[in-house]
Amino acid sequence: MQIVKGNGPITGEQIAERLHLTRATLRPDLAILTMAGFLDARPRVGYFYSGKKPGQDISETMNNMKVGDFQSIPVVVREDVSVYDAISQMFLDDVGTLFVVDKKSFLTGVLSRKDLLRTSLGNQDLSTIPVHIIMTRMPNVTFCFKNEPLIQAAHRLINQQIDALPVVIEQPEGLKVIGRLTKTNITRAFLSLSESHEL
Amino acid sequence: MQIVKGNGPITGEQIAERLHLTRATLRPDLAILTMAGFLDARPRVGYFYSGKKPGQDISETMNNMKVGDFQSIPVVVREDVSVYDAISQMFLDDVGTLFVVDKKSFLTGVLSRKDLLRTSLGNQDLSTIPVHIIMTRMPNVTFCFKNEPLIQAAHRLINQQIDALPVVIEQPEGLKVIGRLTKTNITRAFLSLSESHEL
Repeated sequence: MQIVKGNGPITGEQIAERLHLTRATLRPDLAILTMAGFLDARPRVGYFYSGKKPGQDISETMNNMKVGDFQSIPVVVREDVSVYDAISQMFLDDVGTLFVVDKKSFLTGVLSRKDLLRTSLGNQDLSTIPVHIIMTRMPNVTFCFKNEPLIQAAHRLINQQIDALPVVIEQPEGLKVIGRLTKTNITRAFLSLSESHEL
Repeated sequence: MQIVKGNGPITGEQIAERLHLTRATLRPDLAILTMAGFLDARPRVGYFYSGKKPGQDISETMNNMKVGDFQSIPVVVREDVSVYDAISQMFLDDVGTLFVVDKKSFLTGVLSRKDLLRTSLGNQDLSTIPVHIIMTRMPNVTFCFKNEPLIQAAHRLINQQIDALPVVIEQPEGLKVIGRLTKTNITRAFLSLSESHEL
């Protein structure tokens, strides 16, 4: 492996020479390493390192995990709903993040528990403040797509320090919300990795 | 592999016979399969199937991930602190969960954003309610240990629908809090899995 890695493409003859072995002795080993996918062989060129490493299956598995496979149902409120009603909605649906939409159901903002808690500290009447005053509004909303790799969305959750991403479909007039992706979904994905390889 | 799987333990001689090969021809292949861990060999017994499958590395890697490798610093408040001050503390330290301790610093409860948000809906003066009134209290607090596999703690977060676990040390008089494990930590662990296998 090291010889091929450092010198590939290299012929079987040349590898045998370096190891002070005959080509015949080496043949079965090279065959197995090629079958296992660690080496690639091309006629009249020789062996070269395939780039496959032990554990590659993890990245492969992880790249195949899509947002759509793990997303939850979104909970949506209208912009003119009061902060009080939004908090109630949050408890009713037991979610940590609400997505805010306009009359045409296009995404205009996001409300987190943190936003609502901050407002509730303000000693104001929560039933008179509409959510569009306190929400994080477009274009500052980070979102993701159903067919995106889950890893990519997870990176966004961590880098931007947010709890949930709306899963959206792009339309000419705006974004339609079709899902919700949270760290709970990522935690489930993490567990599914261990389960799918337990047996 | 199939012969050993179906007939193991089986000697190299017997495998060679079935394949109409000499023992010498077979030796390198068996050596590689044994080195790679797919077969096990015991002197005077023969070869047997190790049970190792492609992808096993994931479970191995995941089982080696411990809570202590991913935990965050805990944020702790005393039982007599007001709900108002607890919310302020939460924003100050930018955490979603506070751990509550008694005068001797032993764990007595947990406060989530959800607990605080619920209380703030109640139209009461948040600066006069002490947190011990509204917290989830021992023995109903779910916790974990530094040396526990991360998967086990992640299962607890999902099954009990909680945001954060205190990482504790058991002492004769109670539990000392030494860390905080959240779904953010699990999300980071998920990402580290893909990164450690990318290169």
